[in-house]
Amino acid sequence: MTSEHFDLAVIGSGSGNSIITPDFDGKRVAIIERGVFGGTCLNVGCIPTKMFVYAAEVAEQIRSAATYGIDAHIDAIRWRDIRDRVFARIDPISEGGKDYRVNGPNTTAYLGSARFTGSRALTVTVDGQEQHLTADQIVIATGSSPIIPDPVRDSGVTYYTNENVMRIDELPSRMVILGGGYIAAEFAHVFSALGVDVSIVTRGPALLRQTDEEVSTAFTELAAQRWDLHLSAEVIAARQDAAGVTAELTTGESVTGDILLVATGRAPNTPDLDLSAAGVATHSDGRVIVDEFGRTSAEGVWALGDVSSPYQLKHVANHEARVVAHNLAHPRELRSIDHRFVPSAVFTHPQLAGVGLTERQAREAGHDVVTKSQKYGDVAYGWAMEDTTGFVKLVADRRTGELLGAHLMGPDASSLIQLLIQAMSFGLGVHQMARGQYWIHPALAEVIENALLGLDFGN
Amino acid sequence: MTSEHFDLAVIGSGSGNSIITPDFDGKRVAIIERGVFGGTCLNVGCIPTKMFVYAAEVAEQIRSAATYGIDAHIDAIRWRDIRDRVFARIDPISEGGKDYRVNGPNTTAYLGSARFTGSRALTVTVDGQEQHLTADQIVIATGSSPIIPDPVRDSGVTYYTNENVMRIDELPSRMVILGGGYIAAEFAHVFSALGVDVSIVTRGPALLRQTDEEVSTAFTELAAQRWDLHLSAEVIAARQDAAGVTAELTTGESVTGDILLVATGRAPNTPDLDLSAAGVATHSDGRVIVDEFGRTSAEGVWALGDVSSPYQLKHVANHEARVVAHNLAHPRELRSIDHRFVPSAVFTHPQLAGVGLTERQAREAGHDVVTKSQKYGDVAYGWAMEDTTGFVKLVADRRTGELLGAHLMGPDASSLIQLLIQAMSFGLGVHQMARGQYWIHPALAEVIENALLGLDFGN
Repeated sequence: MTSEHFDLAVIGSGSGNSIITPDFDGKRVAIIERGVFGGTCLNVGCIPTKMFVYAAEVAEQIRSAATYGIDAHIDAIRWRDIRDRVFARIDPISEGGKDYRVNGPNTTAYLGSARFTGSRALTVTVDGQEQHLTADQIVIATGSSPIIPDPVRDSGVTYYTNENVMRIDELPSRMVILGGGYIAAEFAHVFSALGVDVSIVTRGPALLRQTDEEVSTAFTELAAQRWDLHLSAEVIAARQDAAGVTAELTTGESVTGDILLVATGRAPNTPDLDLSAAGVATHSDGRVIVDEFGRTSAEGVWALGDVSSPYQLKHVANHEARVVAHNLAHPRELRSIDHRFVPSAVFTHPQLAGVGLTERQAREAGHDVVTKSQKYGDVAYGWAMEDTTGFVKLVADRRTGELLGAHLMGPDASSLIQLLIQAMSFGLGVHQMARGQYWIHPALAEVIENALLGLDFGN
Repeated sequence: MTSEHFDLAVIGSGSGNSIITPDFDGKRVAIIERGVFGGTCLNVGCIPTKMFVYAAEVAEQIRSAATYGIDAHIDAIRWRDIRDRVFARIDPISEGGKDYRVNGPNTTAYLGSARFTGSRALTVTVDGQEQHLTADQIVIATGSSPIIPDPVRDSGVTYYTNENVMRIDELPSRMVILGGGYIAAEFAHVFSALGVDVSIVTRGPALLRQTDEEVSTAFTELAAQRWDLHLSAEVIAARQDAAGVTAELTTGESVTGDILLVATGRAPNTPDLDLSAAGVATHSDGRVIVDEFGRTSAEGVWALGDVSSPYQLKHVANHEARVVAHNLAHPRELRSIDHRFVPSAVFTHPQLAGVGLTERQAREAGHDVVTKSQKYGDVAYGWAMEDTTGFVKLVADRRTGELLGAHLMGPDASSLIQLLIQAMSFGLGVHQMARGQYWIHPALAEVIENALLGLDFGN
């Protein structure tokens, strides 16, 4: 059995691909990818979803135009044009990335499935042939995949996930979405805005339960006006017939759609890796255990991104990739991964974004908590938008005046939150932030200024 | 001649009104207003214009919907409904503000025109009757008014300004706008989006010349595709007949509209105040001269806002009002007005926002300048928006790494700029800002992250 040896082998071409920096020019590098090149974010995640979301925003804007004195209507939604515009932009990027690694300098690409066969030793199955390689350093960046509930998988019904629902040929009339997290909320927005009747089935009593409870509750109330919600419900069986796909629920109800979309969470891609052969330890949920530097329990083996991170977020994976890339190149000057102030956004409607602690987390952590919920509708630009539902919720510590968390629901939440991320990351105090800078009047950011001023520290 | 005496008299009910804080409870305070209560911003400036602008944004979004695969059209633009929605919200606020000062505690409202008759002595003409008052402290906050070019004023043609154009009964077919600054650019956007053919006549060779030259040039190119632009042109005569209002230009051209809107700048409201009687000195342009604390050259007389500020911006006036209010109440702990990092936004299309030095200003100030212009279209959310014209331009000092200025043209510019205002106000360095915080992927703020990373300091 011949085996090629490399300085570095990276398993996964998403965030893993980005660690092959100029620091590795002149080194022998292997990159292994079993699926589409470029990872989840580029191909089936953040990037294409946002392109669909923007089209959905446009459709919703048209439907609400009368509010602003403009009567308008939608003549047609050209689904295939929307879809093809998205993938005509993305697919060539994926292909180009693959070509660069296949044909480019320094790197050898293995387009197949990898498993460990020993300490820093891998076998990759490429087109049915096993190829063997070893490396001084190995980076596991295999990402995550959709979890399919057993009753769905076992029933044999056709189901979709984020990996293929964006490529369907025709919009269905009715879609059933399983799940109540951000993937479910984004696709529900996209498809309903484009004219699909959406039903959501979720275990929890509300949608988006990882956000602050006040936000989650408010969002769920709005969602209930727009979608057919089945809360505190799980699928116990599914069947497919001329009427479509029907899910039987624990509540005794059943719900039918032309398409069933599963968005019940994602699991780390570790089961096929045979990690035990390399001595790489995992958490009980399958995630690779890493230390603050990105090192696994096995010497010379690293991990980053969804496969090991507590955050399934591309910006976190990017950060971890930068840290691991640095640490690989500078083994005597190891940097730490920074998981303080990790923000996230949900590009549903209304948009949501958050950073830091929820009110509940802050209380549980023992803070003397003060909060302020500032409505968009009470600042001038909110008047212009005729916004009636948006708000900014700030969570702070009464004793220290420190901002602990920020949670937004409303237009441009994903842009506005960056101000609060920046403030928290650099330790700006509440009063300092509110009064130490100009706030353009009457720009939308005034909603944050007013939220800050509204925090009552009792002094 | 009887004269009432006050602890404090404020001339002007715009930003001046906001200095009457609880610090003055128990003091005798006069407020004098000759026009509509609440000032320019509330009644005829920032706030109503943004409400019209948002309706215009909606109309433009509908027109561009096909780009996103959504065919839509506008059935009707209900101008009177747009107008009435705006003023139904604003007029009661103005009325309520007046009632509060007329009937509320502590304050005496004089609804008339004030002039100085001596040191800290005023005469106010209310309904043709002269009333006299003196005060220990007087604050001049009379704002500014549109400048009308002589050929327009002398010609006797009907013309509109920001003070009445938002209240017209019918949209005209054609509008001629004189001026190339932010007021002209915002109204041009509003009226053209609502279906009016807009011509612009401006002295300068480009629109929005106070912004960075690259932004001004790019904006002017886009504007030329949308509006009939007459650059480097001035009005020499005007006439009104059955065809409408026609302006003869220095270029030999003439331009005709159903409505003529004058937006050629604003002058401080000082001519009627008889400032010399109080020993209050002015700049050659009529602005009241104030020191860093807001004090005029006359003991006990202060000024703030458009009447004295180098910035005709409501957020600057608000800041000056807070400083003056503090200084009036705490004469031994005077605070300074802070005019570093004054941002501004223009709510036209595309939106513009800026803070700090333009590239030219930075070079003239002797900086070793490095710049980066980052296109919206090169970040993921810009793809989603199909944006092809937006960009973020950063200006920095090569030696110190300090951010000197930021200039944006594109969607949400007025929200995104706040991050850069905050960074500059708190002295965040370029690299620190780019890499010391998470940037949500793929949110629009990534355009700023990429602009920061693109600044090449040569190290």
